[in-house]
Amino acid sequence: MRIITISREFGSGGRELGKRLADYLGVPCYDHEIIDMVAEKHGFDKNYVSHISEKDIRVFYPSTIGHRFITPNHTAQQSVKVTLAQHEMIKQLASQGDCVIVGRCADVVCRDMKPLNIFVYADKLSKLVRCQTRAGENEHFSEKEMLKKMKQIDKERAAYRELFTEEDWGRKESYHLCVNTSGKEIKALVPAIGEYAKRWFEQE
Amino acid sequence: MRIITISREFGSGGRELGKRLADYLGVPCYDHEIIDMVAEKHGFDKNYVSHISEKDIRVFYPSTIGHRFITPNHTAQQSVKVTLAQHEMIKQLASQGDCVIVGRCADVVCRDMKPLNIFVYADKLSKLVRCQTRAGENEHFSEKEMLKKMKQIDKERAAYRELFTEEDWGRKESYHLCVNTSGKEIKALVPAIGEYAKRWFEQE
Repeated sequence: MRIITISREFGSGGRELGKRLADYLGVPCYDHEIIDMVAEKHGFDKNYVSHISEKDIRVFYPSTIGHRFITPNHTAQQSVKVTLAQHEMIKQLASQGDCVIVGRCADVVCRDMKPLNIFVYADKLSKLVRCQTRAGENEHFSEKEMLKKMKQIDKERAAYRELFTEEDWGRKESYHLCVNTSGKEIKALVPAIGEYAKRWFEQE
Repeated sequence: MRIITISREFGSGGRELGKRLADYLGVPCYDHEIIDMVAEKHGFDKNYVSHISEKDIRVFYPSTIGHRFITPNHTAQQSVKVTLAQHEMIKQLASQGDCVIVGRCADVVCRDMKPLNIFVYADKLSKLVRCQTRAGENEHFSEKEMLKKMKQIDKERAAYRELFTEEDWGRKESYHLCVNTSGKEIKALVPAIGEYAKRWFEQE
């Protein structure tokens, strides 16, 4: 099985890269779709699953100062359940055939299947420009707000990852290949990454 | 001009990768050769140039406690001269045609020529195995000594780089592509990187 996982900084174009890379290789890309499938399978609300996805699920635990061991409340238990359901779905999808999976700690979840794990990053300016370009008409963020949002989301991704592995989010040592998209069109990078991936699996 | 620069952790196989990548692409690889050329052109001793190359040239400055501004001694002046001669040689070689350049801060030196800057790294165990495999018959390092040597050389490379740029050595943000060679044969990775490089330049 040839599984490619994409982890990415917010605004680096990793999601677009995952989709285009999958198209280039002629395989499915799983991203938001995972949320829909989990919601449907388990009867969860889509927005709820989406909210938990990639969030630090610890935020759903009640904060209790001075007590290290706390009894998780219903919300916390539910968020763990959703997370595990997502992981199961990721494994199931990956076992069905070659694919690209964006986010959701798929590199850790699919470890046994020896995926090619790619991390996508970019400099702040490139991410800012990308975020502002793709922002919806009703989204108005100042530069400062956008930078804060970028930082916050990456922090949540890192914390989410930390729940399942010792390997740090975003540290190059945690991935096979790290791609800098600064100043590049994602479309232009895809053939390079696609050919890399093909050769990489040929040599496995 | 299609210039590829290879920066690498000691033991990651970056030097072998540079050579094989150049062969794959049918272009020259400049590595040790630069030292020979600089030595020949300027009448320096090869060993001396080699010693300075990639070392933190600050170590050639006399340490003077309490004095921030010191007059460099002859050795220090000479080491700066050798370094600048190397940089000039790198620029000259790069301007002659497509090539791969290993080490020597070529990514910084050739910045204006828009090179593809690759960083090669690996986990400690892989680097240790590689170092021990390639050690000469007369080199006997314990594991501890080898790890110390690895750390020391990388530290020198980082410090050397710091003299010419604000961008940190080894931080993924300083490079276009970071390749993890852990548990991989360099030979097996070369077609992937070669194809990446070809596509990358096509899209420039």
